[in-house]
Amino acid sequence: MPEFRQNPISKEWVVIARERAKRPEDFTKDSSGKEEVPSHRDDCPFCPGNEDKTPPPLYTIDGDNGWRLRVVPNKFAALQPGLSPKREQVGKFLRAGGFGMAEVVIETPQHNLTIATMDHETVRDILQSYKVRYTELSQNDRVNLITIFRNKGKKAGTSLEHPHSQIIATPIVPPHVRDQMTKCQVAYDTYGACVFCYMLKGELSQRIRVVIESDRFVSFCPFASCSPFEVRILPKRHTSSFGGITPDEIEDLADSLRFTLKKIYIGLENPDYNYIIRSSRVEAPQAKYYHWYMVIIPKLTIPAGFEIGTGIYINTTLPEKCAEYLRKIDV
Amino acid sequence: MPEFRQNPISKEWVVIARERAKRPEDFTKDSSGKEEVPSHRDDCPFCPGNEDKTPPPLYTIDGDNGWRLRVVPNKFAALQPGLSPKREQVGKFLRAGGFGMAEVVIETPQHNLTIATMDHETVRDILQSYKVRYTELSQNDRVNLITIFRNKGKKAGTSLEHPHSQIIATPIVPPHVRDQMTKCQVAYDTYGACVFCYMLKGELSQRIRVVIESDRFVSFCPFASCSPFEVRILPKRHTSSFGGITPDEIEDLADSLRFTLKKIYIGLENPDYNYIIRSSRVEAPQAKYYHWYMVIIPKLTIPAGFEIGTGIYINTTLPEKCAEYLRKIDV
Repeated sequence: MPEFRQNPISKEWVVIARERAKRPEDFTKDSSGKEEVPSHRDDCPFCPGNEDKTPPPLYTIDGDNGWRLRVVPNKFAALQPGLSPKREQVGKFLRAGGFGMAEVVIETPQHNLTIATMDHETVRDILQSYKVRYTELSQNDRVNLITIFRNKGKKAGTSLEHPHSQIIATPIVPPHVRDQMTKCQVAYDTYGACVFCYMLKGELSQRIRVVIESDRFVSFCPFASCSPFEVRILPKRHTSSFGGITPDEIEDLADSLRFTLKKIYIGLENPDYNYIIRSSRVEAPQAKYYHWYMVIIPKLTIPAGFEIGTGIYINTTLPEKCAEYLRKIDV
Repeated sequence: MPEFRQNPISKEWVVIARERAKRPEDFTKDSSGKEEVPSHRDDCPFCPGNEDKTPPPLYTIDGDNGWRLRVVPNKFAALQPGLSPKREQVGKFLRAGGFGMAEVVIETPQHNLTIATMDHETVRDILQSYKVRYTELSQNDRVNLITIFRNKGKKAGTSLEHPHSQIIATPIVPPHVRDQMTKCQVAYDTYGACVFCYMLKGELSQRIRVVIESDRFVSFCPFASCSPFEVRILPKRHTSSFGGITPDEIEDLADSLRFTLKKIYIGLENPDYNYIIRSSRVEAPQAKYYHWYMVIIPKLTIPAGFEIGTGIYINTTLPEKCAEYLRKIDV
């Protein structure tokens, strides 16, 4: 029987429609995306040798044979630091200059890696670079929100093959983010605790949706997953801002993230995906009601008219089955 | 220079990034989707002769040579009328039975038509069937929201080729819908009028984003369009519920919709799209602060990590240019 399930954070609902249930194997990728990728491409702006194709780096980690990671301003940035964030009225409408910072983390010199196939050290460096840039960007008085994300593959909206993530700092905290934080404040009243901590307790006591539990992080398929194999990774320690991540947590997350993505890589045959780090707005790094987290969304389905119109997602897989499938994959 | 623009209804922001601007021609479809479609397929469950492949119709319009339009329950419905909408606690989580109705409007017996290539009468009948089913479904005491939508093509999330729309009635008014209505109530305080009427006045006085203006409807590319060639069609007369559409408005909308989609069909070479009719929740058919409308979203781009994480869409086309391009296409 189909059922509605509520996301305890956003209070949005999903429909889990088991009648049309798909098996995990049904989501494995078609062969079109399986061609061999070389470890270096002369025409790739992120490959070693083409450093002049990007603006000068904002942060670099060097190794014995040149750079191991570079963070550069996005050459095709949709937002620019030189513009004014001032609101202006245009007739009956509101606009503002496109102030903001858009940065690219070039994760490794090697063109054909992805997080699932990287070693611990490389993933740790990526997370470390996120933290360094997050901290630096949050010093800017006009920045109110910092979003870190990774688009992997064409279906996830990127055309660049070289392994990279992005960081975008905006003056605007959009309703999409602010409204959810407000709901978390209301939930704090109800539960007397952070609703994420509350949810995490629920997941850990039921255990059926947990994929990996480490000392400091839990990786699980949420009760009200919007789409097949959606995975969230939450720090066990309550922290509202990603900027508050500790060195120990970075070491731990490097493996939690790497192993989660490796399970997805093996089990679903290297699907395209988006991951996003959702953090409290900059002004509230100590919020008791909000909890930063990562969400990984493999691009296996397409939101259609019903999803766009209502925000209710129809998910044809049981999150419990997805978690079970991922748990069984050795990494 | 990139700029932020605010959607006056949802208060969400988009980034219009003209630096990366694409020309309308850049969005025309690749040749892969251009194979000839036959007017009848023996294996299509919606084609004449296969009426036994669908449940018995809920509504039919007959012509001289058999049916011209059929509305049937969705055989693979994600929601079912026999289930209980009662909320239940599962550990720390909330669920409910998947109560609801899911119906399919089989728009024409002819397999290879789409609204852009239909005649006035056929599109009028489709809109008429929406109204009949909307009215009928809204009588059900347990139904609180009715969503009408059309997914055209694989990129828009449908695998069925035969021209069809869908109607889904839910007991749940999700936050995605309710929160927006609440914002409209607040806006009613600010403007002393419906914010949609206010926006429509803005669009009609600037005129640069209007695609088609008829006696009763305005078709335009919104100031803060989330994606290229997004078009909204609003009734000029303030009405909060689609159920309140009059026969005259149906006649008028049939052409406004048909011509808008024909311009998109010609100008963008038959792209996949979703359209959605957003209507007030069932309990508030007379709300002074809400206004029903149609939104058409051609599937030309893919929302990626930044869009998913923040709700801020990066749009590389100017809505003014899209409207100008569509205006110039003769239909």
